[in-house]
Amino acid sequence: MRVLGIDPGTVRMGVGILEAHGAHHTLVSCDSFQLSKKLSLKEKLNEIRRHILDLIERYRPDVMALENIFFGKNVRTLVRIGEARASAMLAAAEKDIPVVEYPPARVKQAVSGNGRASKIQIQQMVRHLLHLKTVPPVDAADALAVALCHLQTSRVRIPLG
Amino acid sequence: MRVLGIDPGTVRMGVGILEAHGAHHTLVSCDSFQLSKKLSLKEKLNEIRRHILDLIERYRPDVMALENIFFGKNVRTLVRIGEARASAMLAAAEKDIPVVEYPPARVKQAVSGNGRASKIQIQQMVRHLLHLKTVPPVDAADALAVALCHLQTSRVRIPLG
Repeated sequence: MRVLGIDPGTVRMGVGILEAHGAHHTLVSCDSFQLSKKLSLKEKLNEIRRHILDLIERYRPDVMALENIFFGKNVRTLVRIGEARASAMLAAAEKDIPVVEYPPARVKQAVSGNGRASKIQIQQMVRHLLHLKTVPPVDAADALAVALCHLQTSRVRIPLG
Repeated sequence: MRVLGIDPGTVRMGVGILEAHGAHHTLVSCDSFQLSKKLSLKEKLNEIRRHILDLIERYRPDVMALENIFFGKNVRTLVRIGEARASAMLAAAEKDIPVVEYPPARVKQAVSGNGRASKIQIQQMVRHLLHLKTVPPVDAADALAVALCHLQTSRVRIPLG
């Protein structure tokens, strides 16, 4: 199974693609990209959509994984995340890919064993779990973390026989 | 000029299309549609996108008009509005239609002369300004109000000579 993890935002966006071979997970690609401040909101959302459509076409993931909205943040930030999430989900809809969502604490728990782990701890655990030489950028690490969370959850659901 | 006004939401959505002939505005179409609770968020967002793509193809508006996000509302509501707004904007992007946004108080001011007018006052003023026989549904009236606001604003900007 191939999972596309997304860490959505209209300032910066993280993406990560993982391939599962049984209990083993390999990094296919990860990236963190900045959206130009010169773009209008419409242009930014369309940029996100196009970028994700490209990734789906190039890497053919089976599923997209996202964190649920976490309501503790600044309201304006939340709305922008909502808009970026919508763009990502619509790209998945266009390509007929299922979308799964996980609460942020569950993603942190799945990757680090601690539902309140810091951003830096998540980066380090993602590096460790995927045997990477360097720590991925924060947004890419978050995207990989939600993809890892999905792989763990799906593995539990698949009967061993 | 033909304006597509949108009142976005993931529970209920209002749309209204106006045609301007000089200072005179005619109602082309307006509608308020409910999104099925059975749909996933991805499906709802895609439903919004498809619905708006259909409207753009059928009525060929020159511009889409939306209210800015008003940050006084409940946070969860705001995020859902953000997601619905994104779906509408992406439909405009797909069809290469410009998007304009107005603050809610400015829309109310433009339609009723009062930046704090109630929903019912807006419905009544929209009915009055467009010489409609009946009051449009609340969401459709809000969509028509933002379209009217855009027509007023653009008319001022066009030199009379």
